[in-house]
Amino acid sequence: MSKKQKSKSRPVAFADAVGPALAASADFELAGVDPSSTPGYTGDKASGARDLAQVGRELGELQERFHAASRAGAPAKVLLVLQAMDTAGKGGIVRHVIGAVDPQGVKLSAFKAPTAAEAKRDFLWRINRALPQAGFIGVFDRSHYEDVLIHKVRGLSPAEEIERRYGAIREFEAALADKDTTVIKVMLHISKDEQRARLAERLEREDKHWKFNPADIDEREVWDEYMDAYQTAIRRTHTPDAPWFVVPADRKWYARLAVATLLAQALKGIDPQWPPADFDVEEQQRRLAAS
Amino acid sequence: MSKKQKSKSRPVAFADAVGPALAASADFELAGVDPSSTPGYTGDKASGARDLAQVGRELGELQERFHAASRAGAPAKVLLVLQAMDTAGKGGIVRHVIGAVDPQGVKLSAFKAPTAAEAKRDFLWRINRALPQAGFIGVFDRSHYEDVLIHKVRGLSPAEEIERRYGAIREFEAALADKDTTVIKVMLHISKDEQRARLAERLEREDKHWKFNPADIDEREVWDEYMDAYQTAIRRTHTPDAPWFVVPADRKWYARLAVATLLAQALKGIDPQWPPADFDVEEQQRRLAAS
Repeated sequence: MSKKQKSKSRPVAFADAVGPALAASADFELAGVDPSSTPGYTGDKASGARDLAQVGRELGELQERFHAASRAGAPAKVLLVLQAMDTAGKGGIVRHVIGAVDPQGVKLSAFKAPTAAEAKRDFLWRINRALPQAGFIGVFDRSHYEDVLIHKVRGLSPAEEIERRYGAIREFEAALADKDTTVIKVMLHISKDEQRARLAERLEREDKHWKFNPADIDEREVWDEYMDAYQTAIRRTHTPDAPWFVVPADRKWYARLAVATLLAQALKGIDPQWPPADFDVEEQQRRLAAS
Repeated sequence: MSKKQKSKSRPVAFADAVGPALAASADFELAGVDPSSTPGYTGDKASGARDLAQVGRELGELQERFHAASRAGAPAKVLLVLQAMDTAGKGGIVRHVIGAVDPQGVKLSAFKAPTAAEAKRDFLWRINRALPQAGFIGVFDRSHYEDVLIHKVRGLSPAEEIERRYGAIREFEAALADKDTTVIKVMLHISKDEQRARLAERLEREDKHWKFNPADIDEREVWDEYMDAYQTAIRRTHTPDAPWFVVPADRKWYARLAVATLLAQALKGIDPQWPPADFDVEEQQRRLAAS
């Protein structure tokens, strides 16, 4: 086997392995996922970077076809939901994975703490307004899951309301799937120790100070409560239509490769087709030649 | 001089040359710009691709600092306006130049023919709603200039209204500059022959058919009227606060390198600074170690 073939075969094998390796389940145990592991992948950091570049190119091509198909009426959309503890690498995923895709085909929404106006509405109101149109990859940097994560941990909503929300989310996401949306939900799973190291770097480097917030350390005090809230949210909202993938994120290169591959698999599953010409090609060629 | 130094010096020289080489003027003559030329640049296609990669990295770094500064209250914004005849390469600029920037710092707006609701409002209404916030690079794929270009060529608005719009645009863009927006207006200038070749390729390749529209050929019949409309619009709205750059676009690699460099120069002109820590670094380091 030539070197080229070899480097080609790894992402192909990983493409088949990544979904089953990372998918959650109704009795999912977060403690069973090692944040420093690389499920389904046999390579190292260097090969991971090469494979990411290859998957990125593939993603770029798939996305163009996906976008083109929508011009001819194909209704499919993709929604990638990113959830994680601070420093786990959401920003890096957006930059290095979503950055590989033509910006014209991406709808990126970052959900911060709701504004006063948003807080008056149902928690899904602002989510609904940010959904991707046909041919677009929607990316949520945080999402409606904050309303069952920080709300649970910090008691921002009563327990009954949190309960109601799990069901509301399931219904909401089932409706999305019914309307041709492929939903991929990703939890980037970082260890508490790795988070300490990343926060320490933000404190160390002057060009990273702006990313640091003293409140990040407060959140570490309730780390276990967050892990519980994630586990419950994942168990309660993992469905065939809107599955959760828990991506070990202590190794940034693995997390990026895994999310890029999950996204590429979603687009391959849609199998978008180049739209056929809705005009007479030869006639237009004659007109063009005469113009 | 080592090879590395040599390859570094070209984009630096080009960075200084590109603005003066491409800037329009109040008596600008579009016929004086050769669409196949490469003003200010001494390299070829291969070096252009290498230099684009380097400017892209620089752009990525500048943009991160620019975005960071806005978190600490820096008010600066950038607005890149892209105008061109069909096939001139706006899409390629977005993909290959804007694609080099973190998607989290870009606000991309594509302006198609106005909707019925938009058409009832002043032509600047929808533009106003798409402006970038502090720390963002706004990119307009087409813009309010359509309202003095296609509207003039196709008589979609009366001549007096077109006249009024030049003044309205000047005022609008002056107000943007007053509110800390660096405005860069780019016309990608393609030749009619090169457009024929690119349209022919879209007709030739099945994966490009979706990009072809028979109406594109109709527009070729009024090519000269479009060139007149561009020249007039550029003359009437080229101001120190919102300059026009006419970028020869028959060579895609040059147009991409030129726009990337113009954008990098704009960010360098803003000279964004990393925000200082608004917390006691050592105190936070102690808290973190204990967490």
